[in-house]
Order: sequence, then structure tokens, then C-alpha cells
Amino acid sequence: MSLMAPAAERKLTGLVAATFTPLTTQGEINLKEIGRYIDYLTEKQGVNNIFVNGTTGESMSLSVAERKILAEEWCQKAKGKMDQVIVHVGCMNLKDSQELAGHAAQIGADGIAVIAPSFFKPSTAEPLKMFLHEVALAAPTLPFYYYHIPAVTGVNVLASDVLEGIEELIPSFSGVKFSGVDLMDLGQCVSYSQPRWSVLYGVDEQLLAALALGAHGAVGSTYNYMGCHVNELISAFDKGDIVQARRIQFKMQELLSYAQKRGFDVGVNKQLMIELSGLNLGPPRLPVMPCPHEQCLCIAQKYHSIFPEC
Amino acid sequence: MSLMAPAAERKLTGLVAATFTPLTTQGEINLKEIGRYIDYLTEKQGVNNIFVNGTTGESMSLSVAERKILAEEWCQKAKGKMDQVIVHVGCMNLKDSQELAGHAAQIGADGIAVIAPSFFKPSTAEPLKMFLHEVALAAPTLPFYYYHIPAVTGVNVLASDVLEGIEELIPSFSGVKFSGVDLMDLGQCVSYSQPRWSVLYGVDEQLLAALALGAHGAVGSTYNYMGCHVNELISAFDKGDIVQARRIQFKMQELLSYAQKRGFDVGVNKQLMIELSGLNLGPPRLPVMPCPHEQCLCIAQKYHSIFPEC
Amino acid sequence: MSLMAPAAERKLTGLVAATFTPLTTQGEINLKEIGRYIDYLTEKQGVNNIFVNGTTGESMSLSVAERKILAEEWCQKAKGKMDQVIVHVGCMNLKDSQELAGHAAQIGADGIAVIAPSFFKPSTAEPLKMFLHEVALAAPTLPFYYYHIPAVTGVNVLASDVLEGIEELIPSFSGVKFSGVDLMDLGQCVSYSQPRWSVLYGVDEQLLAALALGAHGAVGSTYNYMGCHVNELISAFDKGDIVQARRIQFKMQELLSYAQKRGFDVGVNKQLMIELSGLNLGPPRLPVMPCPHEQCLCIAQKYHSIFPEC
Amino acid sequence: MSLMAPAAERKLTGLVAATFTPLTTQGEINLKEIGRYIDYLTEKQGVNNIFVNGTTGESMSLSVAERKILAEEWCQKAKGKMDQVIVHVGCMNLKDSQELAGHAAQIGADGIAVIAPSFFKPSTAEPLKMFLHEVALAAPTLPFYYYHIPAVTGVNVLASDVLEGIEELIPSFSGVKFSGVDLMDLGQCVSYSQPRWSVLYGVDEQLLAALALGAHGAVGSTYNYMGCHVNELISAFDKGDIVQARRIQFKMQELLSYAQKRGFDVGVNKQLMIELSGLNLGPPRLPVMPCPHEQCLCIAQKYHSIFPEC
Repeated sequence: MSLMAPAAERKLTGLVAATFTPLTTQGEINLKEIGRYIDYLTEKQGVNNIFVNGTTGESMSLSVAERKILAEEWCQKAKGKMDQVIVHVGCMNLKDSQELAGHAAQIGADGIAVIAPSFFKPSTAEPLKMFLHEVALAAPTLPFYYYHIPAVTGVNVLASDVLEGIEELIPSFSGVKFSGVDLMDLGQCVSYSQPRWSVLYGVDEQLLAALALGAHGAVGSTYNYMGCHVNELISAFDKGDIVQARRIQFKMQELLSYAQKRGFDVGVNKQLMIELSGLNLGPPRLPVMPCPHEQCLCIAQKYHSIFPEC
Repeated sequence: MSLMAPAAERKLTGLVAATFTPLTTQGEINLKEIGRYIDYLTEKQGVNNIFVNGTTGESMSLSVAERKILAEEWCQKAKGKMDQVIVHVGCMNLKDSQELAGHAAQIGADGIAVIAPSFFKPSTAEPLKMFLHEVALAAPTLPFYYYHIPAVTGVNVLASDVLEGIEELIPSFSGVKFSGVDLMDLGQCVSYSQPRWSVLYGVDEQLLAALALGAHGAVGSTYNYMGCHVNELISAFDKGDIVQARRIQFKMQELLSYAQKRGFDVGVNKQLMIELSGLNLGPPRLPVMPCPHEQCLCIAQKYHSIFPEC
Repeated sequence: MSLMAPAAERKLTGLVAATFTPLTTQGEINLKEIGRYIDYLTEKQGVNNIFVNGTTGESMSLSVAERKILAEEWCQKAKGKMDQVIVHVGCMNLKDSQELAGHAAQIGADGIAVIAPSFFKPSTAEPLKMFLHEVALAAPTLPFYYYHIPAVTGVNVLASDVLEGIEELIPSFSGVKFSGVDLMDLGQCVSYSQPRWSVLYGVDEQLLAALALGAHGAVGSTYNYMGCHVNELISAFDKGDIVQARRIQFKMQELLSYAQKRGFDVGVNKQLMIELSGLNLGPPRLPVMPCPHEQCLCIAQKYHSIFPEC
Repeated sequence: MSLMAPAAERKLTGLVAATFTPLTTQGEINLKEIGRYIDYLTEKQGVNNIFVNGTTGESMSLSVAERKILAEEWCQKAKGKMDQVIVHVGCMNLKDSQELAGHAAQIGADGIAVIAPSFFKPSTAEPLKMFLHEVALAAPTLPFYYYHIPAVTGVNVLASDVLEGIEELIPSFSGVKFSGVDLMDLGQCVSYSQPRWSVLYGVDEQLLAALALGAHGAVGSTYNYMGCHVNELISAFDKGDIVQARRIQFKMQELLSYAQKRGFDVGVNKQLMIELSGLNLGPPRLPVMPCPHEQCLCIAQKYHSIFPEC
């Protein structure tokens, strides 16, 4: 457990990096790189919060046992160096999610997040909230975040419908990682939010739009290597300098648009992080295909041409 | 033809109302209401630009002959009262689009807009640009706007891919009505835009997001009855008062979210306009179903409770 | 008007070719080729019914005036040579559809067909049936077919829901061109059908499946050049020789699967017809892109290797 | 291991019931009901093959440990009573799938099936085949079936592309459970199939269509309670009596169409099975919602009115 003020009292704001999972070249968990990874984020990127075992971390391609040892190592190595470690514990099935939630509480995570189950897709908010509630029961005092990412899950339930009344169902509810493009839904989440909740936006290439609508922070994979720039974007926005914030956002868009036209999935993204950070993160897991070094080079070069200074 | 400076020199900014088409109770064109409609927009809503025969105007449910007499009446009655009248001339087929474009030039429209053909859906930007080019040839000096609304057309081509190099293909190109939620694509349109182009955002419920990303104005159906409020939103944004702009945007979202949960299509929207404006706009056209007065009342009441002052 | 027994008494069965629209190389209507086209179908392909101005004929890319002169020429040239000419009269708007329906009655068409309007998409059967009803009123005695093609229109209303009770709304109702893959819906159409109705299947590559479920005939573009083979398929099926019917179906699948992997749209299909028939059909219309001769050659060669005898 | 001829030599044909997972009223695994369930299938439904831990069995809502004890019990209780027990071992992650595949080999399953991973969706056949290959390595001699169900997984890769050349990658490959509506793809699977492979169709409401195209058998949830009728359908088809086969298929369609209009998901389906069989199968697992007895009654009554004899 954290020795600082209880996580529930420390509202999560600013940038959160959704971490990749370090693997060996053989594709097994590589705990040794986690310490270096954390140092890289804090020292080079100015990122002090992480979201582990999420989509970027390919948690759905990991076993429960693997997710546990990863979560434990992230929490331990981040202690004293980072503000918050949020552990994503969502699985297709409730039992594994509950087991991971209980484990997250034991290892001193600062919060848990749960994605909507996506094999059997809830068609309304009710079954989804019942599912989230059952997971929360396994870690009732840990700050709880709903992870909303409809384009990936195919679950077309408004986040604002999930949030409505959830504070009574899940007293530890603390916010939402909103990775969607329906900004009316986002706005309704922001305006419904309780004071200690955080609405964290998750579509990096349009973060400025979400800030305008009142998002409290951001969680994303590109903050692994663009955190320093996005911190500037947020600063500019906070100072009312929308022109400067927009300038940085447009640079991010130039890079990500370039990458998307070349096929930008988790495998390419991981390889890009390797190229830019020098960390040994290894390949992705099947069914995500590994990205050859050469295929990624032009994206890395684009990065350096757009952001020469960092 | 306008007696003012050529439209091409007057960059379109601020609010543009996408007008409904006035029909009689029998469903025929009702030209008589157009003058009153224009007065309502300018006097009560502070809206000085209109986009006619678009989606809100159900142009796809009108014949070519009907579209012509409507366009003519809108242009004539708006003269001296409004800044710009943009006539949407897009059809499924090129011949009708060209005929309407040529007609728009004759009647003194300030610009034309063309939607992507959506029965045979272009799968890349090239055929779409060729189609737009052929239409533009029928009115080569009239400011030309591409109307991007992928959720309705099902045409999944990035607007920024359409814009790329289009100034050489269509010298009169003047901007895009961007009714989509991919704000990376929007940002790329803004950063690519030539000085006299306008990027006009078309998803009313998240306009503030688009303003943050540099949109120059807005085209939408809800400005028919919320124009006065949205003008305040834009003012607040321009003055750097993002908190006030957000407050107004959240009110719009509260209303539109409420409406959407009750089934909000063009028919309901038209009836809502009738309730709020007192204009005689008549029913929609099949296959859009008319909306009974009672079904719309609760939305109108919601409007008055959210915006008591106007 | 036909001098034979009224079309309403001649149930439409067997093969119906959905015709391409002959254009000049400049893209204008080419009426001169229609006579030769009809001879080709009857003499080389054994096809005695046609469905004109449909999707294959790119009617949505034609003006109303063009559709009229085409329909007239098809009806006139087919007289005495073909059993039935069905004219598709569906448009996005009701007025044009009604005009074309009335015209079809005047020129002696054997029936009309109407697709669901797809810009404003009916979300239930009711508005769609109201739309169809209004069109039918313009040609009340002409056999009326509903043209169901949800993958193209995006209208997700079951055909069987459209058929339910439609005989009271449209006394001339005569069947459905069912171009969908939901064979429970197809089966329900077949079992609901009145004795004189025809359920015509429109997904050529799986026709045998529809025959097994009781479809009365088939309408499709590939019957323009595979009619002779598909007549054999139907014969074999009718004689209970499912193995032979399947053998022919598998050949069609081999060809069409090969074509689809190379991008098979209306433009490629039209070019393939030109290569195989020798007719001068001209290019497609924008936004459909013309298909270069060379791109189509491999598909034509595949055709000859699979069907060496015809 | 089976004492009969090796499963690889016994081609799987005819009906296969995709079983529900018996749970207690508290939602825990209820092994005690499995024996009775098998007796019901063999004695009342004439079904002699089962597909366990699939979609109907809600395997994605079960933990690995639960799937193991279920698979073991199904194999043990079916021994001597059923022809084949196929254990579905697909998971989102490879490690769990491999573990379950190895376990299936140990407990004497007659075959394994693997669904496409659907969180990270393969966009081409290659990564999917690599994934399947890795699973197969954990049980290299056990007959291996690919479970194709694109509407549920969202993986839009043709089954025929997966099958192409797979016999070299997976020597134990034995067929596909094809739960899709693209019957050109189905036909291509059938025509590509090696003699000992089975193409088993999985969309119960249109089985007859698949039989016409050469499917060797059928796997489905409704065979749990309609097996006796569908055996008659298959018999009639095999004897060339397509009219009788169609009559039975139409009855199934009448029931399933009725059910679908009332919301027919795994939870309702499980409750219907309970009503019709009298077995104690318990509720579904979240996020699938339990179906109240009353909601299901009308579907059960419809069943009895359509199939009075069984």
C-alpha cells in the first residue's frame, strides 16, 4: 500500500502513459526492463502516472498469472518515483477480473480500471454496470475507473449512461478513461462528474478537443514517447494559449496521420517506442504481428523531423 | 448576382444555419414562408448565413425542379438581409448536380456545396475528387465547398485526402463543411487550408472541440433555434473564456442528448423548429416520418427549461 | 402495352439479367446497342427476362430523362423477343420515382421494381412500405416488385417485414428481388408469398442456396455472361441433381471469388461483360471508375479456363 | 483416450449440439447435470456429437480452471454414449489456449476447436493461421477445427483463406465450424476440403442452404432442443426430398424468427432449453443477462405449436 495520502484522495490529472509490456525476444515476460522503463518515462518524458496491462500492454494476450507478476513489478518499481499506477484488470470473464482486482489491492496499486467485456457485448448500460460492480466488489476501496473504448470493444453503450448513478453502485468509483470520439458523451461525463472523479481522455490525436470540453487528464500510448510535448500542450492550454496548444496538437496529428497511413497497430506502435526510447521491449504477442525494424524507420524519422528538439 | 464584393473574397465564418425546407401541409413546396424564415434567423437568432437544400432541407427527397425554385427563392429573399447563401447542389448523379450548380451560378448564390455520392460509394479520394471536379466545371467561379458527412453517406474517405491538391483541380475551392467526428482529419484540414478557405464544423453538439482545433465557423441545423446561444459560445471562445463557452456547449449537449434518447431525426428536428419558431414549415417528406406535435413537446419544454431567456 | 396475357398473370420465374446501361465512349446514353444486347442475351445466354435501370445499370447515376429513354428503348426492342422487362423506378425521392413508375406503365413495361431510399434510411418497415405504396399509386396495375439489397442501401429492415400485409397496401404487389444473405428472411418471404408472387434471388454466387429454400427465380448481373451455365444449374436442381447443380455453382464461385480478390465493382463487371460479349457498352459513370482493359483480362481468362465450352 | 478408432479416422458428420454450460442457481459450475444432459441429447434428440465450451457454453465467461473441469466431465460422461466430443479451447490469449489444448488431449477429447482471437482482430489470414498453428502445437495429434463466426468476433477474414494450405501448417487439421452467411466462402471451403475434413455449418436457421452447397454436418445451439426435427431435415435432404427438408427448415425459421423479434441471446436461449428439456442448467453468466421464466414462456409455447409431436 502506498505510504502517501490514500489514492482516493489524490485526483488523477495530467498525463498518464499506457505502457507497453516488456517481453524477451522469445516473447516471455521481461520484468528486468520495467525499472528502466519507469526511469525513461519520468526523466525523459515527464510522465508520472502509468496505466498498465491495458490495450497498449496487450493484456488480453496475457494470462492471469502473467498479468499479476507484471502488475506487481510495475507497482513496486514505480514506488517513490511515480504518482499513480493504475492497473487494468478487465477480462472477458468476471472471475479472472475479480482475481486481478483483489491482487491489485494487495500489491498497492493506486487504482484499477475495467474495460467492457467484448465477446458477449452488453447492449445497454445495465448489464455492463452489473459486471463492473461485481469486479469492484473484489477491491472495494481501490479507486475504480471504467475504461471506455467502443471502437475496440464494439460495445455501443454511452459512457455517460454507465456513469449515471454509478457512485451508489460502486462507492470507490473515480472516473473514466474515455477513448472515444463522441464528445457529447464526453461532455456529459464531465458535467456529471463528482469532484474527485477524473475524466481522462484516450484519443491522443485529438486531446485538445477533450481539454476544451473539460477533460481532467489524458491516458494514451503515444505519451510514452511524446509525453514531453504533450505536457507543453496541456500547459499552453491551461495558460489560455490555445494557439500554441493547437500548434503542438497539429504536430502530433501530422505524425500519427503519417503513421496510420502506413498501418499503425499495437505492434508498430511498440516498435516505434523501441526505436525512440532505446528500451528492450521485445515483440508483441500473436495475433498482433511483429513490426520489422525497417517498416518503422520512416515513422521514427518523421518523428525526428517534426520534433527535432526531443 | 450579389452587388457586394465577390463571394470568393468574403471568407465564410461564424454561424451558418442549415435550413429546413418549408412545405405545405400537403407536402408541397411552400415558398411563401421563406421570407419569414429569413427574418426569424436574422432577427431572433442572429444568424446571417444559410446553407440551403442540404441534409436538413431534405434535398435528396426533392426533385431537381423543386430544388431550383427553392434555391432561387432563398437567394432572392436573403438578398440584402444575409451575408451568404450557400446552395447545396450534390445529387447521386452528376448530370443533376451539374445542372443545379449552373443554376446556382445564375441565381446569384454565394457558393455551392457538394456531398459525396453515396449509392455507389467512392472507396478512395480519387473518384470522389473527379466527381466534385465535374460538378465544379458547371459553375467554375462560384466558391465551392465539399460537404463531408461520412456517418450519413457511408463514404469513408478522409476529408483531408479530398482537400489535398484540390486547389489545382478546383480553383474556386473554398472550404469544407466537416460533419464528422474524426478530429485528426479536421485538424489536418485546418492546417492544410489556404487563407481564403473556410473549415466549417457540422456536429453542433461538439462545436467547441472543433473551435479549439481551429475551425473557422459552423454549419448546423440546431442553429435555426439555438443560434443566439451559439453566437455567445463563439464569442466566449474568441475572448478566451473557455469556461463560459463550455457552459453553453454543455447546455446544448443536455438538450440534444435528451432529444437523441427520444429518437431525433430530421422529422423530429423540423417539428422542434416549428414549435420553437412558430414558422409554418410543414411535415418532412417520406421516407422521413412526420413527428406528432405531442412527441416533440417534451423536447421543446426541455429547451425552455435549459434556455429560459430566449 | 404487351399484347400477351397481362403480366400480372405471368409469374416471373427462371433467370433475369440485370442489364448494364450502354453508353458511348463519351459517357452518353447509347440506345443503338440495346437491340444487339437483347439478341445476345436471348441467343447466346438463353436469358429471356431483363431487369433494367437497376444497380448494374447504374440508374442512380442517371437523370430521370435518361432513365426514361432507356426504359422505353429496352421495352420496345424486347417486345416479341423477351418474356418480361422489369423497369426499376426507385429513386432517392418520391416524385421522381412516381414519375418513372407512371412512365413505365405508359411504355408497356411488364413490371416495376423499387429499391429502398437510402439517403434517409427507414429504420422500420412502416415508412418504407409507405414510400413503396406512394410509388405504386402512380402505376397501380403494373406488377410491383420490392428490391431488397441491404448491403448496398444500408437499410436494415427485413424483407419479410416489408412483405407482411403488403398485398392490402399494394394490390399489384408481385414479389421481391432479394439481394441479401439472410436466408431466414428469404425463407420467410417464400413461405409468406402469395401464389402469383415471385421471390427472385439476387446474390448470384449463392443462388443454389436460395433455390433450396424455394426461391422462384434469380436476378443478377452475372447472368449477362453466365446465363447459359446458370440455366443448367437451375435445370439440374429442378431434376433433383443437386450434385451437378453444386458443381456449376462452385465454378461460378471460383470465378467470382477470383474477381472479388482483384476488386470487383460495377465498373469491372461492365468491362468484363464487354470482353466476354463483344458488345459496345462503354465506360461506367462517375463515381464508378472505368476499368482498364488490361485489369479485366485476367478475369476474362479465368472465365474461359473455368467455362471452356461457352 | 478413446478406445475406438482414432478420432482422426472418424469423419465428423451429421448433427453436433453446441452445449450450454450447466451452472447452479448461484452461478457456479454444476457438473452433476452433465450426465443427464448427455442422456437427454442422445435419447430425446437423437444427437450423438457435442461441441462443448463454445459460444453457447459461454466459455469466454469461464476461467481456464472451470473450462478444464467442464471439458473433463463432458468427455468422461459421453464415453460410450456419444460419437464425438469436440472441446473448444480458443481464448483471447495464446497461453491459455495452448494449456486448454494440451488438457483436451490428456482427457481424451475427440477434437479441439479454436475461434479467432477477437480483441486484437487479425486483419488478414496470416496472423490468424499463425495463432491457430501455435495452439495446434500443444495437441498435435488431436483433430483440429477452426471455428469461424465473423459476426461475433468481428474478424473479417474469409474461412477459405484460413483453410488454404493449412494442412501443411497443421497436419491434424480436420475442418471448420462455419457460422457465417457468406456461402461463397462456405462453398470454397467445401470444394477445397480434404477427404477427411468436415465442413460443419453453424447458422441453424439456414442449414438447408449449406447442405445444398455440400456442408457435411451442422453444429448449433438449437439442436439441443430441435435435434430430432433437424435429423429429419437432413434425412429428407439426403433422400432428395427437398420439399420436406424445406418444410422443416421453414418451421425452424418460424420459431427462430419469432424468438429473434423478442430478443434472442444466449441467456434467452439457455432459458428456452431449460423450459423445453427440464434440465437444471441455471442462469447464464454476466454480462449475459438472465432471462425471466415468463419472458421465455411465449417462445416455448410457439415451439410446441410449431412442433406438437416432440
